[in-house]
Amino acid sequence: MCRWLAYLGDPIRLDKLLYTAEDAFVGQSLHSRQSTHPVNGDGSGLGWYSCGPQPGLFRTTRPAWNSGNLRDLSDQLESHLFFAHVRATSGTAIQESNCHPFRYRDRLFQHNGVIQGYDKLKKPMDMAVRDDLYPLMEGSTDTERLFYLALTFGLLEDVGGGLSRMVRFVEETASNLGIDNPITMTAAVGAPNGIHAVRYSSDGESPTLYHSHDLHSLRVADGDVETLPDACVLLLSEPLDDVPSHWQEVPESSLLTVTTDHVDSTPFPLE
Amino acid sequence: MCRWLAYLGDPIRLDKLLYTAEDAFVGQSLHSRQSTHPVNGDGSGLGWYSCGPQPGLFRTTRPAWNSGNLRDLSDQLESHLFFAHVRATSGTAIQESNCHPFRYRDRLFQHNGVIQGYDKLKKPMDMAVRDDLYPLMEGSTDTERLFYLALTFGLLEDVGGGLSRMVRFVEETASNLGIDNPITMTAAVGAPNGIHAVRYSSDGESPTLYHSHDLHSLRVADGDVETLPDACVLLLSEPLDDVPSHWQEVPESSLLTVTTDHVDSTPFPLE
Amino acid sequence: MCRWLAYLGDPIRLDKLLYTAEDAFVGQSLHSRQSTHPVNGDGSGLGWYSCGPQPGLFRTTRPAWNSGNLRDLSDQLESHLFFAHVRATSGTAIQESNCHPFRYRDRLFQHNGVIQGYDKLKKPMDMAVRDDLYPLMEGSTDTERLFYLALTFGLLEDVGGGLSRMVRFVEETASNLGIDNPITMTAAVGAPNGIHAVRYSSDGESPTLYHSHDLHSLRVADGDVETLPDACVLLLSEPLDDVPSHWQEVPESSLLTVTTDHVDSTPFPLE
Amino acid sequence: MCRWLAYLGDPIRLDKLLYTAEDAFVGQSLHSRQSTHPVNGDGSGLGWYSCGPQPGLFRTTRPAWNSGNLRDLSDQLESHLFFAHVRATSGTAIQESNCHPFRYRDRLFQHNGVIQGYDKLKKPMDMAVRDDLYPLMEGSTDTERLFYLALTFGLLEDVGGGLSRMVRFVEETASNLGIDNPITMTAAVGAPNGIHAVRYSSDGESPTLYHSHDLHSLRVADGDVETLPDACVLLLSEPLDDVPSHWQEVPESSLLTVTTDHVDSTPFPLE
Repeated sequence: MCRWLAYLGDPIRLDKLLYTAEDAFVGQSLHSRQSTHPVNGDGSGLGWYSCGPQPGLFRTTRPAWNSGNLRDLSDQLESHLFFAHVRATSGTAIQESNCHPFRYRDRLFQHNGVIQGYDKLKKPMDMAVRDDLYPLMEGSTDTERLFYLALTFGLLEDVGGGLSRMVRFVEETASNLGIDNPITMTAAVGAPNGIHAVRYSSDGESPTLYHSHDLHSLRVADGDVETLPDACVLLLSEPLDDVPSHWQEVPESSLLTVTTDHVDSTPFPLE
Repeated sequence: MCRWLAYLGDPIRLDKLLYTAEDAFVGQSLHSRQSTHPVNGDGSGLGWYSCGPQPGLFRTTRPAWNSGNLRDLSDQLESHLFFAHVRATSGTAIQESNCHPFRYRDRLFQHNGVIQGYDKLKKPMDMAVRDDLYPLMEGSTDTERLFYLALTFGLLEDVGGGLSRMVRFVEETASNLGIDNPITMTAAVGAPNGIHAVRYSSDGESPTLYHSHDLHSLRVADGDVETLPDACVLLLSEPLDDVPSHWQEVPESSLLTVTTDHVDSTPFPLE
Repeated sequence: MCRWLAYLGDPIRLDKLLYTAEDAFVGQSLHSRQSTHPVNGDGSGLGWYSCGPQPGLFRTTRPAWNSGNLRDLSDQLESHLFFAHVRATSGTAIQESNCHPFRYRDRLFQHNGVIQGYDKLKKPMDMAVRDDLYPLMEGSTDTERLFYLALTFGLLEDVGGGLSRMVRFVEETASNLGIDNPITMTAAVGAPNGIHAVRYSSDGESPTLYHSHDLHSLRVADGDVETLPDACVLLLSEPLDDVPSHWQEVPESSLLTVTTDHVDSTPFPLE
Repeated sequence: MCRWLAYLGDPIRLDKLLYTAEDAFVGQSLHSRQSTHPVNGDGSGLGWYSCGPQPGLFRTTRPAWNSGNLRDLSDQLESHLFFAHVRATSGTAIQESNCHPFRYRDRLFQHNGVIQGYDKLKKPMDMAVRDDLYPLMEGSTDTERLFYLALTFGLLEDVGGGLSRMVRFVEETASNLGIDNPITMTAAVGAPNGIHAVRYSSDGESPTLYHSHDLHSLRVADGDVETLPDACVLLLSEPLDDVPSHWQEVPESSLLTVTTDHVDSTPFPLE
């Protein structure tokens, strides 16, 4: 069911979070501790903001634990805002176009969860995607469709609104098809100036989602600590170290808005 | 723009056509002589009928000329009816789910050509695919949609009819969107008992398509000849040797029905 | 540290052992129960004997659990003698040439284990490979070198002798370099007429290895049973179902010689 | 037989040379004009120097023309010194560890050419690699061995000397084995402060190699020009545009030493 991580703060090298930390993110591709799927080896991906008009994107069908390119890029890339994702497929094909994060213009999107009854929902979901956006969908995942539906429903101008309308659409469509509790979701939306994260499931039992709390360092593999920048916020499926005070759980049915200045939480979906 | 080959006859080992012949099929992935794209290195695939309920399928994003697995499988597999395809993408992603042949139950489908204006046509084409077939589409190619539209329009029971209705649908839809001459196509449909091949383009200028004529042997790389079974028919984008009497061009706007007994040609599309 | 399986008997379709059984082999790539590495997702491979002069070979860097090609080939291929392997790398690169089984002429070789101190042993091991065999080594694994050393030491004519001399060479060379207990090994050698399997480690603590005992059926995922041919022997790292009477552990330091008629066990290494 | 490119100068985004220019480097993977192999689709790679102790490395078995990751990285990465390579194999396996550039500490190495009689030369070449360097060789190419031999012969301290001794060793060893004219080579060695390039073949007929001459802009696909930094030197297998005054051929049997200040040429091999 995937694991994901998002960072916003002063620029850091990606490997600090992906490889060095005690429960480093890439390790969660091999032995996640809080997922229904301990192994997330169906692909991996990075999205990172730097100077260009678009964030960079690297996606591979290789499990994160054995991708030399992922390791090397993480050693090289520094960013103030980046996403990382390791995938456990819920049935769709293993291909780069099905790896997260997904990118549209200067936005990124990644997801942990599943759409129940996706086989029946896929067509009506596809049909509701705006015509000009439709040909941009390259893969076959439910996640990509959630993203493009949210874009259809105005995500670019209003992230919370776009996501909320997407959720209602999927739930109503599912209900009409006799499918209960279609959505399981933690997700992150990236933009040049900040991150939104959402934790919501139709049955109120979402996968885990945390944000960092007063985080100045991470415990690393040998018990040492690795210093992090003063300004830094992490959003993530499961903690990177075993220091409880570092992590706060994101409540069910909530939307976090994260900028360099603050982390706000509002109920989700929006009215 | 791809090259493909289909064989029906007494069982032979696949490598006789794929590797051994003078202008062996796999060589056409590197230096096709009759395609607008001399290089067809965006993936390759095999489909072969044997004893099981379904034909076997092997697809790889690797160029055919450098795939060790393709070479080994060709050396091992014998079949009385098989398809082979090398891909030159017209823009869609490089992934196994976009390689040909495509398979639905006991049918195979492969294609050389393109759909003009696919960006605008993709959504209406998708919408027209029958609801129960829709979730089975795994890739993003125009080819896969042509196949699933033909299935929607009855290909299982009536190959010529299904393909004809598919062509008319695409051309009408394109016309409504102001797109001229949408279809360029040579294609093959495989079934346990035979092959259909079609050569049709909206502008009457299709890629090349040949069928073998009285073929008992193929010239091989060193000038020798390789004997073929008495019963054998090949359908293919371009010849496997430089012996003109071996090959007959399939006329424009025609549908070939090939069984072990005969090769019939009818005008296409059907009325 | 890998899992492997070898079959000899009346021809069966590979998927019976790879996918259908209760603890089917491919499942061991995701959650092996008896390995130090529960996840064996660094590649997979098949080798199968049929009519040709060489066994067929299919190797992929994809984890077995998500390889569509592996699934399809297993559904299609029938063989009286085949090998299957899922890999957990001990450090060498993820590439097809590092996946098992390895093939030399009509022989196959696969391995579970590791060579301690391989960094120091690699060069002397390579140097001892016979000159004409040397350029045939395509990968960088310790396993491939064990195979080519055994070939150098006469495996083609005398499997037990070749393997024994290989073991002694590696242990002596390691001893000279101050490396203790270099070899951890269960391995299988395939030939057209039978299989040899060896369980030996320098410290006497080998990974698990079993052979089937009076096996006429396998328990499958839903509690049903799947019938196997009368003549059938399996050699494997861990059982395919949870019926203890089906499986016998292969003793430490022993070599099994398996033909269609009998299974013999001798101490290993040979004097 | 490959194509390669190396850049030194003020930082630029990699895509200016790889994608934008009239005869952009990535296009040479599909239709090189000056190579014996017009198609170089057996893998590709990038190496780029930035702030870290090591240059970054990205290598893929995908043909450059269809690698989305290569495109994206080229759009994102800026560097003052980078290498790019597209591969046409001379027989060794298709795997990331066989793609160029190769990296050792803060050095990069890439090559166009072949070693004649490599099957016989591989073992003596391997045996001459220094013991501590030996386990670092991950692939099976002749190129990687040329690099590690040059490292063995002192390349780190003296690039020209290391390369010269490597050439003499290979030629002497070949001569002893009755192999004529073993080496065909253009190659580049990267270090944080500059690039060395060599053009040398045993028979005096090397593949092409150019360096830029007074280059301030490149012609791009639509006839426009793209401005380059004032300080910039390119070394490359074939020109990126069709403006003859931009490019000077590197003479046979010469070694170029390129820093931000100057380009020196000396005869090669060194005495």
